[in-house]
Amino acid sequence: METQINVIKKVKLKNPIIIEGLPGIGNVGRVAAGYLISELKMEKFAELISPYFLPLVLLQNDSTISLLKCEFYYKHGKDRDIIVLTGDTQSITPEGHYNVCETILTFAEKIGAKEIITLGGFAEGRAVSEPRIIGAVNDKTLLKKYGKYNIIFGKDHPVGTIVGATGLLIGLGRNHNIDGLCLMGETFGMPVVTDPKAADRVLHILIKILRLKIDMTKFEKTIKEMEEHIKKTDIIHQKMMQEISKPKKGGDVGYIG
Amino acid sequence: METQINVIKKVKLKNPIIIEGLPGIGNVGRVAAGYLISELKMEKFAELISPYFLPLVLLQNDSTISLLKCEFYYKHGKDRDIIVLTGDTQSITPEGHYNVCETILTFAEKIGAKEIITLGGFAEGRAVSEPRIIGAVNDKTLLKKYGKYNIIFGKDHPVGTIVGATGLLIGLGRNHNIDGLCLMGETFGMPVVTDPKAADRVLHILIKILRLKIDMTKFEKTIKEMEEHIKKTDIIHQKMMQEISKPKKGGDVGYIG
Amino acid sequence: METQINVIKKVKLKNPIIIEGLPGIGNVGRVAAGYLISELKMEKFAELISPYFLPLVLLQNDSTISLLKCEFYYKHGKDRDIIVLTGDTQSITPEGHYNVCETILTFAEKIGAKEIITLGGFAEGRAVSEPRIIGAVNDKTLLKKYGKYNIIFGKDHPVGTIVGATGLLIGLGRNHNIDGLCLMGETFGMPVVTDPKAADRVLHILIKILRLKIDMTKFEKTIKEMEEHIKKTDIIHQKMMQEISKPKKGGDVGYIG
Amino acid sequence: METQINVIKKVKLKNPIIIEGLPGIGNVGRVAAGYLISELKMEKFAELISPYFLPLVLLQNDSTISLLKCEFYYKHGKDRDIIVLTGDTQSITPEGHYNVCETILTFAEKIGAKEIITLGGFAEGRAVSEPRIIGAVNDKTLLKKYGKYNIIFGKDHPVGTIVGATGLLIGLGRNHNIDGLCLMGETFGMPVVTDPKAADRVLHILIKILRLKIDMTKFEKTIKEMEEHIKKTDIIHQKMMQEISKPKKGGDVGYIG
Repeated sequence: METQINVIKKVKLKNPIIIEGLPGIGNVGRVAAGYLISELKMEKFAELISPYFLPLVLLQNDSTISLLKCEFYYKHGKDRDIIVLTGDTQSITPEGHYNVCETILTFAEKIGAKEIITLGGFAEGRAVSEPRIIGAVNDKTLLKKYGKYNIIFGKDHPVGTIVGATGLLIGLGRNHNIDGLCLMGETFGMPVVTDPKAADRVLHILIKILRLKIDMTKFEKTIKEMEEHIKKTDIIHQKMMQEISKPKKGGDVGYIG
Repeated sequence: METQINVIKKVKLKNPIIIEGLPGIGNVGRVAAGYLISELKMEKFAELISPYFLPLVLLQNDSTISLLKCEFYYKHGKDRDIIVLTGDTQSITPEGHYNVCETILTFAEKIGAKEIITLGGFAEGRAVSEPRIIGAVNDKTLLKKYGKYNIIFGKDHPVGTIVGATGLLIGLGRNHNIDGLCLMGETFGMPVVTDPKAADRVLHILIKILRLKIDMTKFEKTIKEMEEHIKKTDIIHQKMMQEISKPKKGGDVGYIG
Repeated sequence: METQINVIKKVKLKNPIIIEGLPGIGNVGRVAAGYLISELKMEKFAELISPYFLPLVLLQNDSTISLLKCEFYYKHGKDRDIIVLTGDTQSITPEGHYNVCETILTFAEKIGAKEIITLGGFAEGRAVSEPRIIGAVNDKTLLKKYGKYNIIFGKDHPVGTIVGATGLLIGLGRNHNIDGLCLMGETFGMPVVTDPKAADRVLHILIKILRLKIDMTKFEKTIKEMEEHIKKTDIIHQKMMQEISKPKKGGDVGYIG
Repeated sequence: METQINVIKKVKLKNPIIIEGLPGIGNVGRVAAGYLISELKMEKFAELISPYFLPLVLLQNDSTISLLKCEFYYKHGKDRDIIVLTGDTQSITPEGHYNVCETILTFAEKIGAKEIITLGGFAEGRAVSEPRIIGAVNDKTLLKKYGKYNIIFGKDHPVGTIVGATGLLIGLGRNHNIDGLCLMGETFGMPVVTDPKAADRVLHILIKILRLKIDMTKFEKTIKEMEEHIKKTDIIHQKMMQEISKPKKGGDVGYIG
């Protein structure tokens, strides 16, 4: 079994831009993506499943089950279409991360996407009262394009690495000729404690970039409604996150060279 | 080497339904499947081996050895044929779980199966005097079909996930157009302590669904006879189960995104 | 990179029987195989390397390096030829064990082998003054064939599983139509403490089976000469063996089913 | 996704020799390679990315990100061309090490390389005031060729294994008909504490072998300039190195055989 994207509904897409919001620290990307889907009344058109996800199914309240998956939603726009990629989980192995992201990007290229914006939280390790948005791009020329928004680029933040899909999608995206922007909202850094404020800040900037009109007044209420489903998969992600400071799988071999 | 199913005997099958009972909590599925095979005098027609199983062989009392494997048994019925899938083990890696289940479902499709019922235990974490049967389906429309049996569907149980083949076979089964029902007998939750009572309850409902006539009086005696072989592989599963609260393999990477 | 067998010298082989002695408990198989190679003046004709071995090279005293590998030696006999398979290591992952053994057996079939005898130690967990030889076969009919030798078959030993190549080669061998016998010398069970006595007992029976004339008087002396090279790879195997009681890789997921 | 080498600039190469300096103990190879690239004003012509690297991107000070990668630089010489292979990381799994090294060697063969020199540190486990250079080759005949340099070959060092790319590239290189020399500078053995002195010693010998004229006076200054980038990836390698004494992934199965 390979990572696979099953197209549920064939859609003609016009110069689509992909917005990624998968589970992660503070669930920033995931709830921001969820609110976008809800407010824009977006429709699901494709699903991704992968052997690199945890080997379990989710049991819904109506006693139906569903595989862990990522989902692609779309919304036609005037000038261009918007695609939101969200889901239950990220890969649970390093190889899986690369594999899943490459599968997503191959699909992105196929549907004509030339831009991707990934959403995430940036763990400060302390309470953040006024979260700022830290940005990263996969091509220097994009700094000018996104310079007019209230995104922090440049030296005054000590972020060294971006782990998982949020980073890899724009990193590998370059090889697919896809321009990438990563927006990270400052947050405490607890993965399973959803941080609506950081997500709100990320969304505000994203809305400006996409020139959308979105009513943000329902944001906290909608997030609460999303909580039940999120909690279920959060237990999974919590376990993953606990491992941050644990020994690495591949680190089992010392080397001289 | 890939996961492979070797057909031992070519059989023509009429609208077969697959009943899965592999090792797991309380060995509920496994002993229920074992009793069915014994009482229906079912015949083995195929075996599955996989590089995702533990790399060892079982040494039998007659000094012959056998690979760890899953086994397919069949029994011709009036209207339809019954296939029971049981075995020594499940996969020991997440990728392996997906891989083995996909291999099983591809085989299921090939032999014309359109339905699968998976049997398992549901860990309550406490002694259960009167085990109930909790159900899950892979399509909403199946709730009606199975509503007449004494299966608990709906909100009054807090099960969040179903891990391993019991869940994945019905989850992935949907993509193979196979209707899936999962029957879980409430049990304490110790994997290597066989719970005959929970298995008995699961079997009672399964027999009704399949409209079989099975003498349940020999159930506990037969289970005792199965114990020796079960014990051998239980040592393996015990080690696997001990890991439930341990760090996850794939959890070795923290992420910001 | 896949597991690969590189043929160094093309040899015509007459009904060859394969004797396997790879590193393991008490190094029983390995030193028995080593003595056979030395006394029969066997010649190496093929080498196996694998990405499932540890990612390191051995540095020899003459400052040349060599990859970890398994080696095939041959000796022409009157009626049939003998092949000895020995080496520095076994696979370090479960999938690797299956993969390496399948590669060996595919090669065995190609060179016309119809029989394999695997040599190993059987860990008693206590000092063994007079090691017996415990046997296992991959087909019931072989019990008669090997019944005349001083091998213990049957119920009076509590061995439940045979892990690694010693077990898998005869287990998977059945699918390649290769008859398999496993000879295990009783030993304390410390992997890195070579047990010459158990190896001596295994060799005595093997020599009778193969109808060889071998001078066993040099056995302990030869083993001492092998020690330096063995020590080098023993450090690797020691680390592997320490893990016996440690959590399993694949055991990271609990399951309900 | 597979390990892949993307050629950035097509270059005609004349009898090229490859010098490898990837992260490792004392960062000896990496900083030696970095200085060579800097002093020879070498140009990058190819990059390697791999799913066996950590699933993250590096965030640069200008807010652009980059994938973890290995890089190939070249410099035309009078008689022959020099290629330097350096990078952010090595593989994080055993299989990955073999896979990445095979990919490098297949590429090396394709561009006509017949020689490789790998650079690394040799962990003494104690402070080394006057680091010596320990050598290893992948063919006995090379000992004569390199005997005239101040490299220690032979019995008077107890190195048993060379782990990772430094060892595997020359080990697997033999199968690609590539002559290999490994130069290891004696160092304390802390992976993330760069040891400029050991690197300096390695470079001195390398320069003589390659008959290069390189100004070593700027060496320590240049290394300091490299430190910031090195620190970022060192955090990654530090975590890997901490695992040296930890349980091995593949060591999770004990075996009798």
